[in-house]
Amino acid sequence: MADTPYKPIMSVADLEAFIERDFPQVHMDGRVFHIASVEPGATTMRLEPKERHLRPGGTVSGPTLFTMADVCAYMVILAHIGPAKHTVTTNLNINFMHKAAPGPIFCTGRLLKLGRRLAVVEATITDEKDTIVAHATATYSIPPGRKDTVK
Amino acid sequence: MADTPYKPIMSVADLEAFIERDFPQVHMDGRVFHIASVEPGATTMRLEPKERHLRPGGTVSGPTLFTMADVCAYMVILAHIGPAKHTVTTNLNINFMHKAAPGPIFCTGRLLKLGRRLAVVEATITDEKDTIVAHATATYSIPPGRKDTVK
Amino acid sequence: MADTPYKPIMSVADLEAFIERDFPQVHMDGRVFHIASVEPGATTMRLEPKERHLRPGGTVSGPTLFTMADVCAYMVILAHIGPAKHTVTTNLNINFMHKAAPGPIFCTGRLLKLGRRLAVVEATITDEKDTIVAHATATYSIPPGRKDTVK
Amino acid sequence: MADTPYKPIMSVADLEAFIERDFPQVHMDGRVFHIASVEPGATTMRLEPKERHLRPGGTVSGPTLFTMADVCAYMVILAHIGPAKHTVTTNLNINFMHKAAPGPIFCTGRLLKLGRRLAVVEATITDEKDTIVAHATATYSIPPGRKDTVK
Repeated sequence: MADTPYKPIMSVADLEAFIERDFPQVHMDGRVFHIASVEPGATTMRLEPKERHLRPGGTVSGPTLFTMADVCAYMVILAHIGPAKHTVTTNLNINFMHKAAPGPIFCTGRLLKLGRRLAVVEATITDEKDTIVAHATATYSIPPGRKDTVK
Repeated sequence: MADTPYKPIMSVADLEAFIERDFPQVHMDGRVFHIASVEPGATTMRLEPKERHLRPGGTVSGPTLFTMADVCAYMVILAHIGPAKHTVTTNLNINFMHKAAPGPIFCTGRLLKLGRRLAVVEATITDEKDTIVAHATATYSIPPGRKDTVK
Repeated sequence: MADTPYKPIMSVADLEAFIERDFPQVHMDGRVFHIASVEPGATTMRLEPKERHLRPGGTVSGPTLFTMADVCAYMVILAHIGPAKHTVTTNLNINFMHKAAPGPIFCTGRLLKLGRRLAVVEATITDEKDTIVAHATATYSIPPGRKDTVK
Repeated sequence: MADTPYKPIMSVADLEAFIERDFPQVHMDGRVFHIASVEPGATTMRLEPKERHLRPGGTVSGPTLFTMADVCAYMVILAHIGPAKHTVTTNLNINFMHKAAPGPIFCTGRLLKLGRRLAVVEATITDEKDTIVAHATATYSIPPGRKDTVK
């Protein structure tokens, strides 16, 4: 996993500006999702769960973990191809594994494949103790004209 | 698909009462999810999408479709084993296929397997024109003591 | 599931001729896979398991079930677009559910989506008693030039 | 990924002896699968593809990649719980990504979760140039009596 052939062309600030302008739904329930880092082939996000993200007992809800994996996977693709906002999820497979410790959770999306038409991303969600909370693999369809969207 | 070895033991009213009492998060953003029917091996839900469920252009959002598939799969299991609320999703695989026509969408969850420890459900989401919007397969872990919860 | 917008353009005989000519690997270990029927949106195959397809105890092996789901999904796509042999599997998700009764097993592949670039197929494997042995969902990438291959 | 809470209790030689004795189907078509290493939370296998594992053009076939991911995931579980041979695959999701360069391919299975009843494994298949050929996530059901099988 150490080596990756991919190089990002958008920074943390670029991705956050993209969300503000083109993907405000991410902040629909408050500013809880943050871009933590962008590296070659990978992007990490952080979520501070609020009451609405939890199930009784303090488990982070399935829809919250799904959303985090999906947004993070989308971000790592855009970080490497530019703001091609018409990129869409075609498949997402998620395994729920351990209850998160109270506090923030983190999602790292890693590019497994970045093709012209399809991208495949692996997303691992962990808590502050590095316990794996959930793990997803997702496929995205990239619109044909995407090259035009990258300056 | 016509034949199923499974017989439900909870009705539409039983499931709706369970949601009120034990799973109020379903109504967190308003009463938009409804149980439409319970049949042998299957349960159908209806969603009236609001602004918060849509992406620009009117597409129902991925997290909304994930939530609907997951809740519907959970409901068809409970309909057949009783209110074993500690049943949890362990895996969910979802394919996003077509944009939904404006209006309500429907999700039918069908039991593929109902074992003592694991249940597997297929969930198909369609719009009013019967176009397949999304399709999911999900696995649930059933807690050992579940028999006590079934009258 | 009853209604489907899809109409096949290859028959059982056309698919079997395609396998002979372009996909002889299906018969690598003997002629055990057969096309049983082609219908609008669906194709059914039959497998007569031999010793090499079984695990101790008589369970049909995972690789055999995977192969059957994958070949059947490929066949239902070709049945509807013609012999576009460069169509490739990009994702396959399979759940293994029940042990098959001794004897033949059947796989029905149903088109969930047949787009220009991607097709999504659901495949259900059953035994002679109609028990669901395995269930898969798979995505295929269709080569751009495919229209030329359809008469 | 660097840290793992898991410690193996079987060595490469133990796993190879297990295959000889209890899982000879792995060698059904010749001795092509080898255990390359066992580490905390991970196991790596090597395959030298023969003619029967290839598709025209030299691509390693889908069933071969599925088999490799499944066997490798099973091996990393056994390496950590002992020879609990009744452990069975319940779900496997695989993405096919790049054509392998000619020569051996490698599969590393990593434990994402090792619970009492369920284990979840991620398996990455690469070629000699470190290109990712396929990536799978799989769930296994562990038989209740497994503790007895671990010395």
